[in-house]
Amino acid sequence: MTTGAANEDKDYVQSLVRGLDVIRTFSQYKPRMTLSEVAQHAGLTRAAARRFLLTLTREGYAATDGKYFFLRPKVLDLGFSYLSSLPMWEVAQPIMRDVVNALQESCSLSVLDGGDIVYVARVPTQRVMTIGLSIGSRLPAFCTSMGRTLLAGLPPAELAVFYDQVKLEKLTERTVANMVALKDAIEASRRQGYTLVDQELEMGLRSIAVPVRNRRSEVLAALNVSTHQGRSSIEAMKTRFLPVLLDAAERISASLPQ
Amino acid sequence: MTTGAANEDKDYVQSLVRGLDVIRTFSQYKPRMTLSEVAQHAGLTRAAARRFLLTLTREGYAATDGKYFFLRPKVLDLGFSYLSSLPMWEVAQPIMRDVVNALQESCSLSVLDGGDIVYVARVPTQRVMTIGLSIGSRLPAFCTSMGRTLLAGLPPAELAVFYDQVKLEKLTERTVANMVALKDAIEASRRQGYTLVDQELEMGLRSIAVPVRNRRSEVLAALNVSTHQGRSSIEAMKTRFLPVLLDAAERISASLPQ
Repeated sequence: MTTGAANEDKDYVQSLVRGLDVIRTFSQYKPRMTLSEVAQHAGLTRAAARRFLLTLTREGYAATDGKYFFLRPKVLDLGFSYLSSLPMWEVAQPIMRDVVNALQESCSLSVLDGGDIVYVARVPTQRVMTIGLSIGSRLPAFCTSMGRTLLAGLPPAELAVFYDQVKLEKLTERTVANMVALKDAIEASRRQGYTLVDQELEMGLRSIAVPVRNRRSEVLAALNVSTHQGRSSIEAMKTRFLPVLLDAAERISASLPQ
Repeated sequence: MTTGAANEDKDYVQSLVRGLDVIRTFSQYKPRMTLSEVAQHAGLTRAAARRFLLTLTREGYAATDGKYFFLRPKVLDLGFSYLSSLPMWEVAQPIMRDVVNALQESCSLSVLDGGDIVYVARVPTQRVMTIGLSIGSRLPAFCTSMGRTLLAGLPPAELAVFYDQVKLEKLTERTVANMVALKDAIEASRRQGYTLVDQELEMGLRSIAVPVRNRRSEVLAALNVSTHQGRSSIEAMKTRFLPVLLDAAERISASLPQ
């Protein structure tokens, strides 16, 4: 979203932003689009959409069959640039596999982006009923165990911005959706060093998360294990899951480059 | 990579391409860079690098601590645009989990991009020794089971371009690295409807792949299972793995939107 002020700034490269918006326009619901459809969805003139699409096509990020345009796998290289730039990304995955082997539940790693958590790694369990999340998936931070863990790790000024901007919404009957109770929950998360969330995102879903810190004790990411309320009691999550998670987070931290 | 001819084309939006190059400059080896380092690695002037970095920062794709710039998780949204635009992406994953449950080996899905295969989905097994591949990883097509499967599915003109451009290289003592033998292997893959590759990418690693086709019988992707030569004989891969893979590919095809 470009603002009027940004448009007038000589340091703002509008054609880069518009080109990225063209990429983002493609999705599950619009995987193949004509030039006119891209122009419409990206809010561009046909002439501008054509220049962006031809440029993306020439560079291998998109292709066309003459009528429809679609994205090419080279777009994944962009996301891969981000993932491979995360210091914990490579070291975390074998450690997360150990967590899944020990607990037989899926293990995920995420980072904060505004009011969302974004999954950067996930090792699913072999269970039939698992959750359809993968790298790049987003969930609201305020009602997830990883989200509250990451919020608890923010410097006070950044946390204040989050509180100013967050839209609370009851996603289940258990969602903590009032500001006082949410602040209490995030404070508790900071004091305890872990966050347990019981069916606030979806009924039946429970998860527990711990922070992954760097050598300066800053929170880089959150690591969690999620389960079904019928499979694991809250007590079992604290006595059996939590020590495994804390140990894994410690091993990831210890493996980080200095 | 911009060419002189492209630069002069009025339909070519050079600042989009340069901005994407700035994103690609970040990596595991250069996760945080100063303005000068970005300029140097992306082949830009400091003034140009500054404009791209400030634009990416303002739009939430990058951030800075005042000295160093780094990417933000929003970059993943770009790759996610591509993944979610793949018709088979969402339906494939539960079916791939069934393959892993049945065979206790990792299952992957990939597409072709020039001379490479690019992983678009992967369900790892719980074994301790697994392969460090994930979404976005690239491997050479000529010596991998998914690569030969995808090459066998190309229209003849596109396959001819591949043969013209491919650089064959012996990655192990078993790699098929001469053109006549490679063409034979790809022809055999087309006739048989599957590809088995035995330790051509890495000693010890065996894999078997089948095509995933759309309703018009075009090959959209390749689905494979990989194993260690000490765990599974070639015979077992043909008698036990292949029927499971063929069935899974058929189920993915049948689930595709019309």
